Formats: sequence, C-alpha cells, structure tokens
Amino acid sequence: MPKQMVGALRVGEPVDSVFLVAECALRSTRAGGSYLNLILQDRSGQIVGRLWDATEAFAATIAVDSFVHVKGKVESYQNQLQLNARSITRAETEGLHLGDFLPQCERDPGEMMRELTAILAQVQDPDYKAVVDAFLSDKDFCADFRTVPAAVQNHHAYLGGLLEHTLSMAAMALKVLEHYPALRRDLLLASVFLHDIGKTRELSCKRTFRYTDAGNLVGHITIGVLMLEDHVRALPNLPEEKLNMLRHMILSHHGELEFGSPKLPMFAEAIALHYLDNLDAKLKDISETIAEDKNADAGWTDYSYSLKRRLYKG
Amino acid sequence: MPKQMVGALRVGEPVDSVFLVAECALRSTRAGGSYLNLILQDRSGQIVGRLWDATEAFAATIAVDSFVHVKGKVESYQNQLQLNARSITRAETEGLHLGDFLPQCERDPGEMMRELTAILAQVQDPDYKAVVDAFLSDKDFCADFRTVPAAVQNHHAYLGGLLEHTLSMAAMALKVLEHYPALRRDLLLASVFLHDIGKTRELSCKRTFRYTDAGNLVGHITIGVLMLEDHVRALPNLPEEKLNMLRHMILSHHGELEFGSPKLPMFAEAIALHYLDNLDAKLKDISETIAEDKNADAGWTDYSYSLKRRLYKG
Amino acid sequence: MPKQMVGALRVGEPVDSVFLVAECALRSTRAGGSYLNLILQDRSGQIVGRLWDATEAFAATIAVDSFVHVKGKVESYQNQLQLNARSITRAETEGLHLGDFLPQCERDPGEMMRELTAILAQVQDPDYKAVVDAFLSDKDFCADFRTVPAAVQNHHAYLGGLLEHTLSMAAMALKVLEHYPALRRDLLLASVFLHDIGKTRELSCKRTFRYTDAGNLVGHITIGVLMLEDHVRALPNLPEEKLNMLRHMILSHHGELEFGSPKLPMFAEAIALHYLDNLDAKLKDISETIAEDKNADAGWTDYSYSLKRRLYKG
Amino acid sequence: MPKQMVGALRVGEPVDSVFLVAECALRSTRAGGSYLNLILQDRSGQIVGRLWDATEAFAATIAVDSFVHVKGKVESYQNQLQLNARSITRAETEGLHLGDFLPQCERDPGEMMRELTAILAQVQDPDYKAVVDAFLSDKDFCADFRTVPAAVQNHHAYLGGLLEHTLSMAAMALKVLEHYPALRRDLLLASVFLHDIGKTRELSCKRTFRYTDAGNLVGHITIGVLMLEDHVRALPNLPEEKLNMLRHMILSHHGELEFGSPKLPMFAEAIALHYLDNLDAKLKDISETIAEDKNADAGWTDYSYSLKRRLYKG
Amino acid sequence: MPKQMVGALRVGEPVDSVFLVAECALRSTRAGGSYLNLILQDRSGQIVGRLWDATEAFAATIAVDSFVHVKGKVESYQNQLQLNARSITRAETEGLHLGDFLPQCERDPGEMMRELTAILAQVQDPDYKAVVDAFLSDKDFCADFRTVPAAVQNHHAYLGGLLEHTLSMAAMALKVLEHYPALRRDLLLASVFLHDIGKTRELSCKRTFRYTDAGNLVGHITIGVLMLEDHVRALPNLPEEKLNMLRHMILSHHGELEFGSPKLPMFAEAIALHYLDNLDAKLKDISETIAEDKNADAGWTDYSYSLKRRLYKG
Amino acid sequence: MPKQMVGALRVGEPVDSVFLVAECALRSTRAGGSYLNLILQDRSGQIVGRLWDATEAFAATIAVDSFVHVKGKVESYQNQLQLNARSITRAETEGLHLGDFLPQCERDPGEMMRELTAILAQVQDPDYKAVVDAFLSDKDFCADFRTVPAAVQNHHAYLGGLLEHTLSMAAMALKVLEHYPALRRDLLLASVFLHDIGKTRELSCKRTFRYTDAGNLVGHITIGVLMLEDHVRALPNLPEEKLNMLRHMILSHHGELEFGSPKLPMFAEAIALHYLDNLDAKLKDISETIAEDKNADAGWTDYSYSLKRRLYKG
Repeated sequence: MPKQMVGALRVGEPVDSVFLVAECALRSTRAGGSYLNLILQDRSGQIVGRLWDATEAFAATIAVDSFVHVKGKVESYQNQLQLNARSITRAETEGLHLGDFLPQCERDPGEMMRELTAILAQVQDPDYKAVVDAFLSDKDFCADFRTVPAAVQNHHAYLGGLLEHTLSMAAMALKVLEHYPALRRDLLLASVFLHDIGKTRELSCKRTFRYTDAGNLVGHITIGVLMLEDHVRALPNLPEEKLNMLRHMILSHHGELEFGSPKLPMFAEAIALHYLDNLDAKLKDISETIAEDKNADAGWTDYSYSLKRRLYKG
Repeated sequence: MPKQMVGALRVGEPVDSVFLVAECALRSTRAGGSYLNLILQDRSGQIVGRLWDATEAFAATIAVDSFVHVKGKVESYQNQLQLNARSITRAETEGLHLGDFLPQCERDPGEMMRELTAILAQVQDPDYKAVVDAFLSDKDFCADFRTVPAAVQNHHAYLGGLLEHTLSMAAMALKVLEHYPALRRDLLLASVFLHDIGKTRELSCKRTFRYTDAGNLVGHITIGVLMLEDHVRALPNLPEEKLNMLRHMILSHHGELEFGSPKLPMFAEAIALHYLDNLDAKLKDISETIAEDKNADAGWTDYSYSLKRRLYKG
Repeated sequence: MPKQMVGALRVGEPVDSVFLVAECALRSTRAGGSYLNLILQDRSGQIVGRLWDATEAFAATIAVDSFVHVKGKVESYQNQLQLNARSITRAETEGLHLGDFLPQCERDPGEMMRELTAILAQVQDPDYKAVVDAFLSDKDFCADFRTVPAAVQNHHAYLGGLLEHTLSMAAMALKVLEHYPALRRDLLLASVFLHDIGKTRELSCKRTFRYTDAGNLVGHITIGVLMLEDHVRALPNLPEEKLNMLRHMILSHHGELEFGSPKLPMFAEAIALHYLDNLDAKLKDISETIAEDKNADAGWTDYSYSLKRRLYKG
Repeated sequence: MPKQMVGALRVGEPVDSVFLVAECALRSTRAGGSYLNLILQDRSGQIVGRLWDATEAFAATIAVDSFVHVKGKVESYQNQLQLNARSITRAETEGLHLGDFLPQCERDPGEMMRELTAILAQVQDPDYKAVVDAFLSDKDFCADFRTVPAAVQNHHAYLGGLLEHTLSMAAMALKVLEHYPALRRDLLLASVFLHDIGKTRELSCKRTFRYTDAGNLVGHITIGVLMLEDHVRALPNLPEEKLNMLRHMILSHHGELEFGSPKLPMFAEAIALHYLDNLDAKLKDISETIAEDKNADAGWTDYSYSLKRRLYKG
Repeated sequence: MPKQMVGALRVGEPVDSVFLVAECALRSTRAGGSYLNLILQDRSGQIVGRLWDATEAFAATIAVDSFVHVKGKVESYQNQLQLNARSITRAETEGLHLGDFLPQCERDPGEMMRELTAILAQVQDPDYKAVVDAFLSDKDFCADFRTVPAAVQNHHAYLGGLLEHTLSMAAMALKVLEHYPALRRDLLLASVFLHDIGKTRELSCKRTFRYTDAGNLVGHITIGVLMLEDHVRALPNLPEEKLNMLRHMILSHHGELEFGSPKLPMFAEAIALHYLDNLDAKLKDISETIAEDKNADAGWTDYSYSLKRRLYKG
Repeated sequence: MPKQMVGALRVGEPVDSVFLVAECALRSTRAGGSYLNLILQDRSGQIVGRLWDATEAFAATIAVDSFVHVKGKVESYQNQLQLNARSITRAETEGLHLGDFLPQCERDPGEMMRELTAILAQVQDPDYKAVVDAFLSDKDFCADFRTVPAAVQNHHAYLGGLLEHTLSMAAMALKVLEHYPALRRDLLLASVFLHDIGKTRELSCKRTFRYTDAGNLVGHITIGVLMLEDHVRALPNLPEEKLNMLRHMILSHHGELEFGSPKLPMFAEAIALHYLDNLDAKLKDISETIAEDKNADAGWTDYSYSLKRRLYKG
C-alpha cells in the first residue's frame, strides 16, 4: 500500500494510509455525542481528521507524535479538505520513513552540505579555519545541522531549513565580500556558518517541530556560544581576541537588544552578518507568506504576524 | 601662489592661502580683549583659525560661506592644529575652484555616472526603462545628482556622495538579484536609482552643506516622490500600478515609520531596497567613524551618535 | 415592492427585498450539510443572512459587492437579528439607488459643500486662494470629495464623511483663528481643506468601503501632496515657500512619525491643524462608539480598539 | 535712583541699580585670581554679572534670591551683554517692589480674573457651580491662582501665567462648546478652571521660580485633586459621580500615562480638555521659542528641548 | 440540603444545590432551538451550566449576581466538567452565606489582621503612628480592608486578598529593614500598610468582583491618597513633609509612569516599597498561574497575559 | 615619607606624595603657553592636578595608569580643590601598595568571603553544591571574585564591590527564602552566587577601572554562562535540567530584553533573583548618589543619569 500524500488528496477520494498525529483531542457534539479531532500530517502538509463516536478510552490510545493508520474518505468542510475516518489504528513504525512525514527542504541536504563546505573551504586564516573544521568534522553536529529546521514556523520551517538558510547566506556573503572588500572574509564566512548553530539544540524535530526546554530557557544565541566553547577547547592556540569576535558575531546577529541580542553589533562584519541574516529570512518569509495565502485571488495577503503587515502580491 | 591644503598643514608652517569660512564668531578673552574665531575649510578638511585683537566692525565683514585670504602660522593647541592668523582679508573669487574647498568623493563623478548608467541600461521593462531614462536625460537633474552629498554628516558627506552611495547600491543590487532570482530585476534597479533623488533638493551644497527649507519642511522622501511625478508626466502610458510600486519603494525605504517612512515595505523588492540602503550606509558610517576617530591608539572609537554605540577597531 | 431597511427589521418579520452583499461564504454544519453565510447591508446597517442547504455551485454565483434579492424571515440568534433566507437570487441593478445601500452622512452633501465653500471664500491671500480655487473648480475632484467616507471604520465611516469632517474642522478653525489671531488665517483654512484630500483616492466607496492599492501602497498623506502638485501646475507664480508650507501641513498633520507623518509639525498653523483634526476625529469616534455599544444598559462601553480604552457613558 | 531695567541696558551704559540674584558662584581665572559670576534678573530679563577679584568670604555674603545693588558698566562678551561690576552690595529690601524683579504677564491679573469669573458665571448646574464658587470665594486660593506662573520654563513662565493660560482655555472652551453642542458645558468649563490648580502649590514664585518639595514629590495633578477634596468637603450634597468626573478630568488631562496622567481620558469632555490644554500650551511655547531665539536672522530656531524639534519662522 | 461545592463535583454526580450566577446568556443551536448558558460559581470555583430549551422570557428572570437553585447532573464536555440542568429556579437568599459563594483567602482574616496590627505596632514615630492608628481605628475601613480582593484577576483575586498581600509585604518589610538598616523603619511600615488602601473603593466584591466607576475613573492610587487625606484631617500636627512622603510612597509604588504611577520613586523607602510590592505580586501570580494551568502534564504553562510570558514548571 | 591621601588634602597644604594617573592631557593657555592637566587618584578619591609650562616631550613621559610623585600645593579653583604641581616625576613602583591607590570596600574581603561561604554551605542539593564548590575551590576565580568592583561607576564601584553586592544579596536571599518557603533554596542561593561572576572578566581593575574587550564584546551575562560551562565540565553527572536552570538564572537576571537579558525570567526563583539584584543595586546607588551629591545643603540631588531622576534627601 503506497503512502497517500496529504498534498495530493482530493474531495471524495477514499483514504487508506498512515499519517503522523500532530494534535489530538476528544470533542463533544452539542447533541451529547463525542468525536476525535486530529491534525494529521505528512511531509506534504496537514489535514484535519475526524472520527465520530469515539470514546475517551479510545482517545487515550492515540498520542501526539505517534503514527496512525487511517481509513476513510476526503470531504470538504468550510472550503477546507477534511478526512472523515471510518477507522483509526496505531500504525506499525517498522517500514515507515520519517522523511515521508515531516516537511522537508526541496533541495538535497547532502548537496547543500557539499556546497556550504566548499564555500567554507575558502577560509584561509588558520584560526578561523580550525574553528570551522572543528564543527565540520563533528559528525553528530553535522547530522543535526543538516536536519534541523530554521524555525518552528514563519520561514524555513522544514527539515534542512537551517542548512538551506545558512548556505544561502554564505553564498550571498561571498557576493557582499566581493563588493565590500574591506570586510574580513574569513571572519564573516566563519560567522555565517556559526550564527545559528544553537538552533540544533533549541529546536526538536524528531517528530513535529517544537522548542526544547533548553531552547526556551537558554535560547539558540547562548546555546550557539556554548557550542562554540565546546569545540574550541581543543584549539588552545586560538587567540582570545578572535574567539571574542566570533562570540560577538553570534551574540549580536539579531541586531537589537529587544530582539534578543544581548549586545549590539560593534564592528563591520557583525553589521554585515545581521543584514545578511535579515535579508534572507525576510525574503523567505515574504515568499512563503504569499505562497500560502488562502485567498489566492486577493491582491493582498492576510495580516502576517511575523512581518507585522499585509503584503502586496502585485 | 598655490593653494595650501588644510590636510597637509604641519605645525610651524607659514600659511598664505585662501580658505572657505564655515563658521565665524567674535569672542572675548577674560582679560577684556577680543579675537575672531573661525572654522576654515577646504576640500581636505577643516582647521580652527584665530585672529587676535579683532574688532566687531572687522568681524562684520567676514561672512560664513565667503572666501578669505589668510596669512599666519600653524600652531598646536590641545593636540589640535590651529591657524594663528596675522591677517585675514576677503578673497577674490575669480580664479578660485569651488572644488578645492568642499570635500569630494575620491572617485571621479563622470566615471561613476557612466558605471551607474551602464547598470541602469540593463533595465528592460519599457515602463521602468522610460522612467529611468526620463531622469538620465534630464541634464539639470543629472548635474545635481552627481554633485550632492548623501548627507550633511555621518556617511558620504562629500560632493558626489549620493552618486557614490547609489552606484554602490546598484552594483550590490546586481549581486542580490543574481542570488535571489525571484526579485524583479527592473523594479529593483530602477528603485535603487530613484530612492534618494529627493536629496538633490533636500540638501544644499553650493558652499558648506546644509538642509534647505524644502528639505526640513518636506524631506527627501516626499521630494523624491514629487520629482518622480514631475518626470512621469511625459509618460502617459506608464501603468498606474507600476507607478504606485515605484512611489512605494521610495516612501518605504527607511523601513520603519519612526525613521520617517510613512509606509512599511510591503513587497520583496521594497524589503531588499531597504536592506541594500542600510547595509551600504552603515558600513560607510562605520569605516568613516573608525577612520576619523581622534584616539588613534584606542581599541574603541568614541561613542557615535549616528550609530548609537562605540565601535571596536580590533 | 418598497425597500425594507435593515435598521427597521424586527423579529418574525417576513422579508422580500434587495440588499448589498458585504461578505459571503459557504459553511458546513457538523452534520455534513452546508449553508451560505452572508453579511447583507444597506445604508441603515448590516445583518447576518443564512441560506440553508446551499451548494458550492450556487455559492459561486453570489459575489461580494453584488446585489441580491432575499426572501425569508427575520429571526433572533444569540440576541442578534438574523435573516433566514428561503431564497436568494441575483438582483437586477436597474432601478436600484446605490444611495439606499451605503451608509450616508445625515447632512446633505450639497449643503455642506456650500457651507465649506463659503468658509473658504474668506481666504484672501491670492496664492492660497488660487490653490483652493484650483480644487473647488475641479468637478471630478469635488464629486469625489463630497462622496468619500473619512475612514473605512472608526469615525465618519459613511458617504460624505470626509466632507462632514472637513467642514466641521473648517468651522472650528474659524473659532480658533478668532481666539489665536497670530495664526495665519489663509494658510490654516486652505490647509484644513487640503489635509485629507488624498482620501478620495485612498478609499474606494463604489460599493462596500475598502482601501485601494494606491491607498495601501502610497497612503492618503502622500497622495494628497501629489494631488496638490497636480493642481498647482497651472499656478506658476505660486511662491515655492508657500507651496512647501502647504505640503508640510498635509505631511505633518498626523503629528508624530509613528502615526504616519514623515515630518513633525514645525510651525504654529501645522500644530493647530493637527489638534483640530484630532479633536474632531476623537469626539466623533467617542460619540459613535457610545451610540453603537451593544450593551445599552452598561455604564461603560466595550474596549475600543481605535481609542485603546473603554469609555464612560455616565 | 530709578530702577534700570535689564531689557533696556545697552553697551557702554553705566549701571547703578538693584537686581535679584538668580545664580551666584565664585570662579577662578587660570592666572590664579578669582571673580564672582552672577545671573542678575529683573522682570524684563536676565544678564550675566561679574565682579573681579572677589574673595570667598565676600561671595558667602551674596545669597541666591537676595537683592543686590550693583554699580558698574555694561559690556559685550561673545555677542552677549554682560554687566561688569565695580561694586556689589546687599540691597535694602525696603521700598523695593517684587513686581519689578520677576517676569510678569503683560495683561492685568485683576482684569483677567474678572474675565474668567464672567465665563465661569455661565456654569448653571448647581453642583458644578458650587464647586467653582468654593474656589472663587477662597481668597487665599485666588491670590495664589492669579500670581503663579504656569511653568518654571517653556510656556507662560511668568507671574500670572497660570491665570492667563486658564483664561485662554476657558474662552476657547466656549467656542468649542458652541461648535460641539453635545459636550456638557458646565462640566467642561468647571474642569478648565480646575485642571491646573495644583500648580499653585507645585511651583514657588516668591522669588525666582522653582518646584516645591510637594511639587516634586506629589505633582500638580494629584495636588489639584487634593485641593478639590478640600473645597468640596463643605458640599455634602455633591453627587459622587460628578465628583469622580471632576477628579477624572484633572487626573487625565495630560492625555497619556507617560506624560504623568494616571488615567487616560475616558469621556468626551476629558478628551476636549486635553486638546484645549495642549493647543494653548504648544502655541504659546512656539511663539515664545521663536520670539526668544538668539539668531534673529535665521529661518529656523535652535532645537527646542520642550518641543523636541526646530521651528520654522517663515 | 448541604451545599455541593463546585470544586468537589465529579462526572455523573447528581446536583441539587445553590450557586451564584457569574454570567448568563441565551444561546441558539444551529437547529433552531435555544439554551441558557451560565457560569455558576461558589467559593471553590466556577463551572459551566446549561439548561436546554430555555425561552427568552425565562432567561430574563435569571440575573447576573443572583443566586439560583440548580437540579441536574455533572457531565464532561471537551474535557471540562459541565452542569447539565434539569431545572433552574431563583434561590431564596435567606439562610445563604455569601462566604460560600465567593473565593476566599485560605487564611482567617481576623488572624491576618491581628498579625498586621502587631507589625504596625512597631511604628514608633508619633506622626506615622497617628496615621496608622487613624486607619486601624476606623471600623468601616477595617471591614472593607479585610474583605476586598487585591485584584479582579491575576493575583490574590479572592476575599481577603488585599489583606493577605499587605500582611505578606509587611512581614517581608521587617526582613528588608533588618538587612538594610539605613531604611526608615516607620516610614516603610506605614507605607506598606497604606500603599493599596485605595483598592477598598476601586473594587467591588459584594458579589462577583468588578471595578467600580470610581475605580475606573480615579484609580486606587489616587483614591488611596484621598483616603489618606480624609484620615489625616484629624491630625493637624502631622508635619507637611511627612505627609508628602506618605503621599509619594502611595503615588510612586507602581515604579514607572507607564504603569500608572504619576511620579517615579524618589527616595530609598519608595524604591523598597516598589520592589516589595512587585516581588510579592509576581511570586503569587506565578504560583497561581502554574497551579491553574490546564495542561497538568505539560512542562510549560500556557502564555500568561499578566506576566507576558510562558512559565517553566520544572 | 608617608602617603598623603587625596581625601584628606586641605587648601594651602604642601604636597609631596605619590598618586595614580587616571587621566592626562597637555593643554594650552590662550596666551600660548601650555600645561599638563591630570586626574590624580588614590583609594580615597580623585583630585585635579596641574603642572604649568609643560612641554609635549615631557607630557609624553606621563602615562595613564602609571604612578607619579607630585610636589606642590593644594589650592581652590571654582570651589574645588586642585593640586598645583611644582614638579611631577615617575614614581618607583617598588614599595607601593596598589591598595593605597584604588577605592576599596570598607569591609574586609576575607571576612566577607567567609560570610558568603558560610551561607553557601547551606546548599544541600548535591548537584548545586558541586557547582558552588567548583567555583569556591578555584583559587584564581576566588582571587578575582573578591577583588573586582561591581561596576565601573554607579554602584559598588570599588575593589571588593562585587563580593559585597553578592554577599548582601545572599544574606537577603536567606530572608526571602524564609518568607517564601516555596522557593527552591539551593537553586536561589547558588544563583545569587553565580549571577554576576562574569564581571570578573568584564571589568579590569588592575589600575583604574574599565571594561575589557571581552566585557564590551561579550558582556558579563554571557561570560558568566561560559565560566559556568568551564566549571561544570568536571561534573558529568550534573543533570541537564539543573544546568539549564542555572544558565537561565544568569541569563535572565536583568529582567527585560532591553536591559541586556536575552531571556525573560521564566520561573519563581529567576524572578526573585532579579528583584534581589535590583533592590540591592538601587538602594546602593541611591545612598551613594546622596552621599556624593555636591550641593550638601540642597534638598534634592542633581539629576542622576543611572537612576534617571533626581533624589529627595529629606
């Protein structure tokens, strides 16, 4: 039985496939009955699922982040597709590919990693090079780095999103360095690579994306500085000044205290990193917001809470 | 008598040359005497000048923005050079080159203009092309555009500064367009050219730089939109939507209402323009702030009021 | 069949009349059925309409801003009136008066326009007079000016609202001028007239009120300055200083950058205009908020999002 | 010996007259000598005074807010007048008129008080009338009310300033009431009278103007509410609701929490009072700022710290 | 028939008891029927109540803040308990104890009052002592003071909450005074007692808790200062300076203008009072937010609007 | 020759002693001469020093942070003492006690350290205890910790200031824990100890106090988290959750993002730490501001830039 993808479901289509449970709640009807309301997900999107006449005992068997086998039919409710289930059972995880159930970057992580590595190979200063290599040669880190999304929502919120965002910034940084030759190439390239590494521990993406406790309590900026600390321990000759500049780049890249940076950018490369990050994130947020806007015909998107404005599609 | 440049004066050097008067005031000594205190300027910089035992009647003959012939000697006062004048007389303006007296871009305006024109020649959309050409073929505009500074102080505050800033942004825009191919090339290039054209009327640079009344009352953002209006009158077929997008790009390029933009950027090219502008202006401000910092030995600059922070020179 | 006005409908009343569709959506019931949910409007107000067992095909025939003929009965749902439709058909527009379907100022536009013209006739300075006359003699402008609302919601959100707001400010300005004789009469009166003219193009009121693309992208403040430009082109002798002061009055009338004015008011008349505008708008907003508050018996209104507070009715 | 007024002194004029000491400090010259530096004041203005070769013992005899008899000559120092004293002695206060030494309103307080009383006589509601009369019949209050300035600096900073400001607002309130007839006349008029009464205890104007301890610790807004409390104690029949509305008008008249109002205006008359106050204060501040600007020829004033902008004089 | 407490109700339990009506509204079902939706309350909590097939006439007989006798059964709806009523009738108030129906402090008010009185007995300065005694000997005040909640929601929102909050601050103040001996003991203790007395008139707690008109228009800070005024009238020898300091403590205890204090704390005891208040209120808010969080298993609470963050329960 | 202390110098006193140079600049007189202007310091305070007729060559031999032997006489200039030097020579550092030249805490560091250690000995949780012990047993850390000031200026700006501030908070924390028993004792005590440890590397106090490059680029909050990392490396069994909570306490103790905390306090102990820190720092700042205010007789201090207000001394 091949996987039926959420993004390909059509009204009236019979369904017999496995999905990941993103949310799950037992609800009652006014008439006194009860039904199970779920958000079902795979890598192509999410759909509401409903199982009528469910009991509390049954509901207790369906956990968020588990896989379920759903049989039923696609219907339309308030102009949105909905999966009316005839039966829902816990699925065997054996034989399932997690990659089928989580949104993923369109580009291949391996290819992106090779491109990023190629750019970072341009770093010549032996100190910055040693720092970069300490991360690139850390297999656990690399595995996380190529997997984690860049955010839970808003922009690059899919597996590989952090890598895609970092690679895009690195390629753009090469152009900025070409145009502003006074910028220190090695410092900027190394910092583009490092600026968001803390997200590998701020976000959990084993199943549905969420913030870890460390993410909420410490945050990716400080986590990133701590990960840097961890990796430079083996580099006793790294000059303190260079280490402080790398720490500063990570700390200040949000640009303003009220956006969570405990320090303002205080030299040219830190300013450049901040704008490279913002430019890439905002352009991605804009294109995703327009692509996902519900009113395809409207000239303007709905209000975007991340961008704090409506966007013109014209 | 060759022009002696301020930037080349050394302690003990006799002076016999012409300077532009940037400021002028009669001051008294505690002992009851009085002296004329001036800021003298040429394109290489400014120096304090002093003429002892000056009378009010004499002081009244020395106007700000006039040229004076100064004879005297360079001395050092509180670690700064100072020109102690033996005599100050009004200079004949005949034979003077204004260009010798105002700070100027290091690059040749003609060459920069050719480079900018070459970039703008890439605009293919006939509507945006017509708008660009309407300005490029306006000789009065072009003369102002290649002359005016980008600011009275902070960054690019020299003749040709606006052109240099605009050219830098245009060249950088080409790279951004290469990297983000979804951005509309012609819209962005035309808007980079137009975003600050209002500065040609916001700033006066005939002599020392200052804001015009129109600059203070209306501001370069609105002046720019009005100049656009003026130039598109001859283009009756320009679609209203494109005109509104160009207006929006000019209006929103400061990025936030509190920085004087009456509208937030509402589409991708407007966001890109905002970051291109900020990146170029901030990097220039940083490099000038560090270059001009008085304490050459210090690791940090003095507090910068435009950047609202001290900068690390390391 | 006479028009049945929304404001006069009572529970149990049979309805057989034409309404304007302000909003329209097909919704499903939990039981699997579907119904059409509409906001129906005429000049006296809005009412929810519902047609049960509607199909998607039928829903597609009902467009926002079209007229529909509704037969059914008024019922009460959660203490609000609701029109339960037996049938909904597209209405012939022939014979309909648009004025029956959009909220309108209680006062007659012609009379208000005569009063405003009479006040503006007091402008004596030939330059300001010429500017005022350029607008008053522009028939298209006048037609728009007497029609457009002052806002989509909050205050004066009805046809003729802008004219009523402007007239009220002009009459109040006469009193302010009497009390503060140092204020320049002609400058203030002309500016009161001009301050919001951009709203004629920022807002669309052909059917239900909404922002135009130009309104969202450029805004009424800049549009107003552009309309002024358009009208003074025929006045080559208008002194630049007076034109800049008029532009400044329009630009600065919101009083603060964060409210969308790119310039702060910089002379007495600009400050006076700002307070005249705010006083009239806020008092109107307060009286409308109290009048429309749902809990007629309560001593306090609900929280008002435009005023950012609850109001005391005592 | 007639009083020589500061405002009438001219360069070279011999001086033999009495002044009020606003500031006083012993300063040393670089050469090791010392001199007394004073700010001398009378109702027409302030002038710097200097007595050379003063001793610390002598300086200790000259107190701020005392009167001194100065003999000397007017000179010019850095384009400002300065009184070079030959001798300074403590003046007999007998025979001095305090009114000669403090800035005063140009209008006669008695006449202004009669005008204000006439306006307040229009209050018809017996409750509000009783409150107004309780203050008008309190001789101590009235004596203070007609004397105190409206501020230590910025606007109406002269004897009688509070009365002039209140009278101006009351007269303007009549016009606002005429134009907005829904406003409750008696509530607004009574509140205009009461809104700043706390300034009679917030400011001390016996000699040079300054804040009292109560002014700094409690502030005129709360003091005003307390003075109201004091005066309504004799009015047991005053309805609690009216008293709360009067308190609210006083408390909220600064319009925003960050300007020191603990409550936002919550009904129409409170909003009207806020704008009446701001309009009168700002217009006065503007006209005084322009009148007192040092550079009479300049088109723009210096930066005004109270208005947070430069003003256009055009 | 003993009172059945909301907090002890269990699914399936038959109910035959009296409750206080906190909210009441007639609602319609989609099918056209109607039901009465209530929030029923007693001192142990609130529960949703529903009576099916209610008429508008019947609904009009059930008033908010009245007592009703409900017969029915407890059911579960969307994981929350709900009381499905078979009958609802107005209850006789005779024999009811109001204390059974409003949330109350766990501690006994009499005991708390004795503890607070014991702490205040340490005030030795005869002036501050006289002020404290003026309140403690005012029986009406004391009755209100021991009854009123500290807030309508967020923290200490139960009968006796103000007393509990004040007592906790007073006991903590003793420790602060011990640690910072330079703080003036009597001033701080008296001010802790007085800082929130205005809440006795800002809040109404006869039935469900709400703001009074005086609370909304004047606020507890100013009401507190007025109550102080009232009580010191009988103390003619109280030095003005001490009175101003007490007023200042009350006025400034919110710490910042934007939190409703018209004055910033300007001496050490005022700062200490501000932190004592904030520490006690925030710790209480945190513990209540965690205790009441719906998702007992989650590691983080829902977003708290009063604290503007989510809380970690770990 | 015994050390003459700055704080004990009197007018007319001959001086022959060693001082630390805090600032040094060559200045010219108007008459063309030049003099050396210094700020001389020892642990008791600072005094202006002047050496007349100094040459640039001589000035170059006097470095900031060096020791100089000054012979001269104390005079009074503008009511401030001034040391007029007859001769200034570089001092032999041999035999000098640095402690004589830097401001120091009045209490003995050893004694304070013992008190703090005694409090920390109460920590019972083995994990938190291990963390605390890791620092207490680090001799280099302890040496820095008992030496460094808590700030360059504002509060506790003297050697031992950080220890005094931490000890005061720890002792106060014991009282807070006694009063709020739900707070986790060990977590709070350990965090009070750790919250500002980063200041040992943010501030340099070898000679005059200043920020280090690491202090400016990274800041004491992040440095503190890094130092924690360094010390827990030897504690492999420390649970991740406890480590994250300690990190969070350090990160969030400034309470708001705009004060440099990248995270808001998210549990009760973090809030308590924030208020303990603020209370101690503000009370110290207030008492120092009042003690150092120049106008001993005035009832109010000058404006304090750290507290953003003037203080009442009454």
